[in-house]
Amino acid sequence: MKRKKLKMGMVGGGSDAFIGAIHRRAAFMDNYIELVCGCFSVNPEISRSSGREYFLPDHRIYDSYQEMFEKEMELPVEERMDFVTIVTPNKWHFEPAMMALERGFHVVIDKPMTFSLEEALKLKEKVEETGLVLALTHVYSGYPAVKEAKARIAGGELGKLRKVYVEYTQGGWLSQRIELQGGNNAGWRTNPKTTGKAGCMGDIGTHAWHLAEYVTGLKVLEVCADLQTYVEGRLVDDDGGASLLRMEKGVTGVLMATQIATGEANNIRLRVYGDKGGLEWRQMDSNRLTLRWGG
Amino acid sequence: MKRKKLKMGMVGGGSDAFIGAIHRRAAFMDNYIELVCGCFSVNPEISRSSGREYFLPDHRIYDSYQEMFEKEMELPVEERMDFVTIVTPNKWHFEPAMMALERGFHVVIDKPMTFSLEEALKLKEKVEETGLVLALTHVYSGYPAVKEAKARIAGGELGKLRKVYVEYTQGGWLSQRIELQGGNNAGWRTNPKTTGKAGCMGDIGTHAWHLAEYVTGLKVLEVCADLQTYVEGRLVDDDGGASLLRMEKGVTGVLMATQIATGEANNIRLRVYGDKGGLEWRQMDSNRLTLRWGG
Amino acid sequence: MKRKKLKMGMVGGGSDAFIGAIHRRAAFMDNYIELVCGCFSVNPEISRSSGREYFLPDHRIYDSYQEMFEKEMELPVEERMDFVTIVTPNKWHFEPAMMALERGFHVVIDKPMTFSLEEALKLKEKVEETGLVLALTHVYSGYPAVKEAKARIAGGELGKLRKVYVEYTQGGWLSQRIELQGGNNAGWRTNPKTTGKAGCMGDIGTHAWHLAEYVTGLKVLEVCADLQTYVEGRLVDDDGGASLLRMEKGVTGVLMATQIATGEANNIRLRVYGDKGGLEWRQMDSNRLTLRWGG
Amino acid sequence: MKRKKLKMGMVGGGSDAFIGAIHRRAAFMDNYIELVCGCFSVNPEISRSSGREYFLPDHRIYDSYQEMFEKEMELPVEERMDFVTIVTPNKWHFEPAMMALERGFHVVIDKPMTFSLEEALKLKEKVEETGLVLALTHVYSGYPAVKEAKARIAGGELGKLRKVYVEYTQGGWLSQRIELQGGNNAGWRTNPKTTGKAGCMGDIGTHAWHLAEYVTGLKVLEVCADLQTYVEGRLVDDDGGASLLRMEKGVTGVLMATQIATGEANNIRLRVYGDKGGLEWRQMDSNRLTLRWGG
Repeated sequence: MKRKKLKMGMVGGGSDAFIGAIHRRAAFMDNYIELVCGCFSVNPEISRSSGREYFLPDHRIYDSYQEMFEKEMELPVEERMDFVTIVTPNKWHFEPAMMALERGFHVVIDKPMTFSLEEALKLKEKVEETGLVLALTHVYSGYPAVKEAKARIAGGELGKLRKVYVEYTQGGWLSQRIELQGGNNAGWRTNPKTTGKAGCMGDIGTHAWHLAEYVTGLKVLEVCADLQTYVEGRLVDDDGGASLLRMEKGVTGVLMATQIATGEANNIRLRVYGDKGGLEWRQMDSNRLTLRWGG
Repeated sequence: MKRKKLKMGMVGGGSDAFIGAIHRRAAFMDNYIELVCGCFSVNPEISRSSGREYFLPDHRIYDSYQEMFEKEMELPVEERMDFVTIVTPNKWHFEPAMMALERGFHVVIDKPMTFSLEEALKLKEKVEETGLVLALTHVYSGYPAVKEAKARIAGGELGKLRKVYVEYTQGGWLSQRIELQGGNNAGWRTNPKTTGKAGCMGDIGTHAWHLAEYVTGLKVLEVCADLQTYVEGRLVDDDGGASLLRMEKGVTGVLMATQIATGEANNIRLRVYGDKGGLEWRQMDSNRLTLRWGG
Repeated sequence: MKRKKLKMGMVGGGSDAFIGAIHRRAAFMDNYIELVCGCFSVNPEISRSSGREYFLPDHRIYDSYQEMFEKEMELPVEERMDFVTIVTPNKWHFEPAMMALERGFHVVIDKPMTFSLEEALKLKEKVEETGLVLALTHVYSGYPAVKEAKARIAGGELGKLRKVYVEYTQGGWLSQRIELQGGNNAGWRTNPKTTGKAGCMGDIGTHAWHLAEYVTGLKVLEVCADLQTYVEGRLVDDDGGASLLRMEKGVTGVLMATQIATGEANNIRLRVYGDKGGLEWRQMDSNRLTLRWGG
Repeated sequence: MKRKKLKMGMVGGGSDAFIGAIHRRAAFMDNYIELVCGCFSVNPEISRSSGREYFLPDHRIYDSYQEMFEKEMELPVEERMDFVTIVTPNKWHFEPAMMALERGFHVVIDKPMTFSLEEALKLKEKVEETGLVLALTHVYSGYPAVKEAKARIAGGELGKLRKVYVEYTQGGWLSQRIELQGGNNAGWRTNPKTTGKAGCMGDIGTHAWHLAEYVTGLKVLEVCADLQTYVEGRLVDDDGGASLLRMEKGVTGVLMATQIATGEANNIRLRVYGDKGGLEWRQMDSNRLTLRWGG
């Protein structure tokens, strides 16, 4: 059978956006995915100029995602997109995702999954009904050293697990109220109408949470959290906070996340300790996995 | 006026003990303190052999601290000890300290201060009454880089403080139930009758706590903690845990301490973030103070 | 004017090779280059299966680079390749490069440039004659932190330069005589007939050399070197060595390179010192540039 | 038999000097040595005030080392000094050392041993004749991690040795011509009349050299060096340089030392590679010994 590249469409990710470019780069680098179409902005002009910049022909650059799904369905199967990547503010994750699933397209969404829990549960139901793939990009679990960590824990090298410490400290980024300046994506991320009530915890705490559960293979059962908003006037629930965690099998831990740790870059870090040994991984030195053995 | 070396007596710190040797080394290295007497063990033979090993004449090596205080009082002022250093298990901090203060000797005690809060309050009262010095050896605040951190925060370099993260992770040490083996000082440290109910938090959490308050100059106002004992059969309240902190001036933070983080050595680490910048100090790289500035 | 992706052809880089995959990944990730044709192996079957794996149509997969240049010339300009990337053993850099230049194609060659100095000089002449681009992939100069280092030095931040220390220590790789095992690319790299006489210095010393000259903007004028071959039976001039360097403007330095530093991974590191400050960059922590200032 | 503390005398090391204080601190910290006398400066007033600061009685503070040796000889054996520590500029190492040995005192000298090779050979002869101890303080070999490195190499863990890289980069210190300012010890260290012709190599290159030979147990047989003096007007042979080394058993290496690497603190670092593995030690992280194993 003839192999073919997977055909990707995109919602969001115009040349004025942040995360779309990273999705495209990740998609292109090993040469198994090609971008075939997209609606790259709510502004049709930006969508059009972005699509051309990405070397798309004009008839595959759309003014709305509704139009995109409709027109792509009319194309021959071997031409139309196979899946859609949604890289919009949280508020606009659910609708295009649901529409894509209903038309038979697989879906990739940047985290967090949706604006509300209700929306997430509806997508879950639709995925189960259709058998299609819905992927959330908790990207930190993709590092080879993180996969190695998971495998070693699963293989019992650390013994019976005891503690998980995970933290995600960002700083320069939201440490001042830059959302007032415009021209950056702090605006929608600190606006409850576009991002939801969860501020930092929804934006990056989700990464820390996923990393902890992914590497240990254990679910968090109970949380006791203290969330704060330090930057005055900011409307979301938190720009940082910390949680005491109780996980399956008696493991306890701490999750810390903040976007106002002035001076930090993008410091996500995990430590796990068992009765035989411990391990540590930091995204700032991402090819290193440190293992420490007991007595 | 003729300068003279300060004359130190010691309670505990025999050749079979751990922390006494460190107190002596610290006392000797800059040549301002000399050891003149001591009762180095509840076992008079160990006290005697230890004292000789420390080059003391026999008549200044005592069988009990009660004897020591009595006999030293009888010596001429220029010969008798100026202060006593108490390096015994927590249970025996209060009595020799109180006795010393009553006889006019200054006192140094290894942390934690006493076995119970009541004892600590009584010592506080006696200190205020006598005007004598009572010093607790929260030694991590003695590092030059820690003093530098304190000075920079006090000078406003980090701006208005927001977050304090402090942790103390030990591991190889109490990760297994070594208290059953004997021949080590895990025995008294995990025995509620000698150490008190507070396990890891009393032993090393105190250092983390002091470091956080010392460097920021802010008191902790509220604590929400989750403590656990992982090593089966261990009788103290915890061999590790974590706390969410609320401090003065709206600062929040996290304190983590554990003695069962298998593979860790003696990893005490502090981070403080303000609205202008952040700083980090780690005892494992103790001459370095990392400062990070915001955008 | 309509933008278009650059069309790349490749010589070497079959699915059994090492460096070709890295060239393709680098070419694809920002979406400005597409692979349109190639002769990926001297073995036509490997060339064919590799080309299919890279999603090429059969008529653009060639059995020889001679055939490739010929057939591509017959294609309409807007379809044919724009440049060729040559990722073969050193022995086969010159011929395809010269042939490409003669037919008007730009050329990318993996370092070192050619098998002999004579060949390199001929290519230089041809490049000057044709005005085409010939690019050598001294990739370490592509890191943002390295470009930052170069810019800061050029801007005078370090003051008058004094010292350059550059080293490239590899280890696990050629520390034993793995060229005898087959199935790896140690074979051609340690065979004077395919790699040339220069062993480690030709293979990775070139990277160190280029990095030193690139960052400082200064040429090396004199070299005093001591080269050794430690692995018994190895036929190239060296599997490591060190050189004292004298560079322009009175700068002196040291270049160390070895492929038998057992246990090292891929440790290329540069330090430059001037009378005002110094800087350091290490590929193992490649996003960090350390600057140190004087008194 | 009654143990007693060793009695130390000192030549040099007044309160205006640098290295003497470090010798005293090292001597005092484990309580086996006491300072009993000294001639702390060529200036009798500084000698006297320094001795008092060190809690010596006036009759054990001398105006000259000649006087010191003479008077100490007249004291009862159990009172007189056991050994003398010489911490003067290089020019004044030989005479007091020879005089001490002739009178039966053991000797400690700060490196480098003497002003000239002839002097060193005479001392060697005298030591062999008298059977007394003459110790040079190549202090970096005293770190536990360095001793561990030596033991592991001797035990064959790295296999057959191949390469030794040792470097000592200092910077802030002599990077500018601070010897003209006075009030620091750069004066005698850059004056050929007090330090000898060897500048940086004599001062700190000796430490690097000793470390390389000490850890490997191998002697350097051949040296090819390039020395420079960058700071204009400086009179010693070098303020930094590098050497290619050939050692016993076919080991080769590089020694780099400089005191003008602006921005560096006191960075002495050793790497050794054998055919089974490699090790690394850095004084800036002195409790860590990194071991790396081959494939």
